[in-house]
Amino acid sequence: MKPGKIFVISTGPGSSDLITVRGARLLGQLDVLYVPAGKQGGESLALTIVRDYLVDDLVIRTRHFPMSKSQQEKTAAWDGIAEEMYQDTRQGLKVGFISLGDSMLFSTWVFLLERLQGKVEIEIVPGVTSFSAISAMAQFPMAMETQSMAVMACTADEVVLARALEQHDCVVLMKVYGRFEQIKQLLIRKNLLSHAVLVANVSLAEERCFTDLNQIADPAVLPYFSTILVNRRWSSC
Amino acid sequence: MKPGKIFVISTGPGSSDLITVRGARLLGQLDVLYVPAGKQGGESLALTIVRDYLVDDLVIRTRHFPMSKSQQEKTAAWDGIAEEMYQDTRQGLKVGFISLGDSMLFSTWVFLLERLQGKVEIEIVPGVTSFSAISAMAQFPMAMETQSMAVMACTADEVVLARALEQHDCVVLMKVYGRFEQIKQLLIRKNLLSHAVLVANVSLAEERCFTDLNQIADPAVLPYFSTILVNRRWSSC
Repeated sequence: MKPGKIFVISTGPGSSDLITVRGARLLGQLDVLYVPAGKQGGESLALTIVRDYLVDDLVIRTRHFPMSKSQQEKTAAWDGIAEEMYQDTRQGLKVGFISLGDSMLFSTWVFLLERLQGKVEIEIVPGVTSFSAISAMAQFPMAMETQSMAVMACTADEVVLARALEQHDCVVLMKVYGRFEQIKQLLIRKNLLSHAVLVANVSLAEERCFTDLNQIADPAVLPYFSTILVNRRWSSC
Repeated sequence: MKPGKIFVISTGPGSSDLITVRGARLLGQLDVLYVPAGKQGGESLALTIVRDYLVDDLVIRTRHFPMSKSQQEKTAAWDGIAEEMYQDTRQGLKVGFISLGDSMLFSTWVFLLERLQGKVEIEIVPGVTSFSAISAMAQFPMAMETQSMAVMACTADEVVLARALEQHDCVVLMKVYGRFEQIKQLLIRKNLLSHAVLVANVSLAEERCFTDLNQIADPAVLPYFSTILVNRRWSSC
């Protein structure tokens, strides 16, 4: 039997029509689709995004990617899912995997890539990142000309975040969730509060844009998908 | 008359089907499309990418964006193009502008945004960046988990590039054109040559991927659209 192939399809940031034309077309040709679910049994945003592009009889396999601190638990999950996908390709199937945003940036897909690369044919379809969508939505540019940009996770040390804010014209601060007050104080100390926008749930129905971070009265209600974009060459308010 | 609107549509990195579904749909609804041309009279890659999505009777206005060092010349060009687009919207037209990659990152569109923001309704459609396409094509990941990424233009000072290579797990080096040998020596000094890939003309028919930068015998033939992706956590060869 001719072996199958794995198609990794980036869904983009959230709205169904921010997927690429190629991604939408390939989704309609799959035999089976693996869907990452953050929480056991939780609804997958990625699946909601692509639902309209799928054929009716598609086999959907929702798989849990543990967020726990146990490396052993995570490794076992990745090994198991990679093996399942590999076995599906051995049956000659077209096997899809969907990934929010871009599948090669801050995505769990890469843990599967490590296990499958070289064993099976893989095609990866890139996607629109959340920060590109945020920049477009807020009409707040990223780097230009000879400027530079840093993309940081707010889980990094504060000294590392401070350094990035000093050295780059534009900084994307991802994973703000639970760290908003600390990041806001850092931006105030660096005189960058009026050069920052926060966008939550970009391109979704619940999208919110704050051009003045002081307007966020209760950070506890900020959604999980909240990102701050800083550009010291552009004013936000 | 009801005023028109400006639609800024990111084309993605080069292949027609790496545009977003939204971008493709909006292109088919335009009355007039502004196309940036780098060289006077030069063919526009951005126009080639979107050609299939355009209606037959679309008015196409190719406009020259000077690359010269004269700020006065550039300012005059941007002023003129922004004013033309604005006048078109005053006629009630749907006015498009296309931009390679993502329109808010290293794009001349932002010079028009500066002039049009607040004067007219603008919708910006984000796109797939060249580095996302390169990472997918080369199956060479960008940052993960708590790692960070810097996006740099090789026109920056070497000391700035060296610092980015020291401080970030992943570095995108854009605008390699004409600076390959210098960048390669820098990567050798930083022990990063085996953690770097170079992709030229990503997603186009002439696409080339080098997982070993020593294979590039004559850098003079490297195309204009050449980008190096560095990831110190991943081996390229």
